[in-house]
Amino acid sequence: MAVEIERKFLVVSDEWRAMADAGRDLRQGYVAHGGHASVRVRLSADGAWLTVKSARAGLVRDEFEYAIPAADAEDMLDRLCVDTLIRKTRYRVPHDGKVWEVDVFAGAAEGLVLAEVEMRSIDERFDLPDWVGDEVTSDPRFRNSAIALMRGFEAAV
Amino acid sequence: MAVEIERKFLVVSDEWRAMADAGRDLRQGYVAHGGHASVRVRLSADGAWLTVKSARAGLVRDEFEYAIPAADAEDMLDRLCVDTLIRKTRYRVPHDGKVWEVDVFAGAAEGLVLAEVEMRSIDERFDLPDWVGDEVTSDPRFRNSAIALMRGFEAAV
Repeated sequence: MAVEIERKFLVVSDEWRAMADAGRDLRQGYVAHGGHASVRVRLSADGAWLTVKSARAGLVRDEFEYAIPAADAEDMLDRLCVDTLIRKTRYRVPHDGKVWEVDVFAGAAEGLVLAEVEMRSIDERFDLPDWVGDEVTSDPRFRNSAIALMRGFEAAV
Repeated sequence: MAVEIERKFLVVSDEWRAMADAGRDLRQGYVAHGGHASVRVRLSADGAWLTVKSARAGLVRDEFEYAIPAADAEDMLDRLCVDTLIRKTRYRVPHDGKVWEVDVFAGAAEGLVLAEVEMRSIDERFDLPDWVGDEVTSDPRFRNSAIALMRGFEAAV
């Protein structure tokens, strides 16, 4: 088990692109959510993963992640995740000693760009890049399950 | 992905015990259920598994099963499955060319004994042993999620 401490921000400019890697396309969805955890399936060119995440307790959540066959992930996305599909391109962007992940959403949530940074502890201090705006870590509109239901980003904000 | 076709019956006598193996103790629970699937974690002396099962379409459901570290299963059972824990001993009982699984529940559902048999196709014919009674395949009271909520078997029937 890993513990995930993550903070999430809106992205307000394209300045991050100059520092970003080539990005990788992700498809993901939730096979189940409810009770004390959610279970995500994620598929990319690099592989596929099934991830159990506990409900968030403040900034912290437990995470259990397992590599699975890509064919299983395809099946689950097609059959079990119809309501919760997300497509996005994820870029890695170094800034001030940390690597941020910038997600550019496609499909229903096209237009939405979010940046996430993982912390080693809940009180870790870090520098905010100029290209991020409001923090949305605790904003229910920007949970992945909510993003999956977006019909265009403009409608959500 | 496997396809699971299973039928479930109440057990009405102890005659199966003469044919049964030594049994193995299982602890299981649901980390999430809802939407189009449920996700079960199961721990026994033989190992631990995370299993994604689609909602049942008639007798048939899709099943994706992955071996996971026992320590992860322990963590998930303790932290994420508090409402859905089941303890049971599972016996394998050969009968007329098929192997039945007889589950003797412990804990909250103590007193409940169920038999399951897996079929190769939905129209497969098989012999019913004398020690099974009513079929409960489609009875919501005998779903594992419902069994987890039982407070004594007598209260449920």
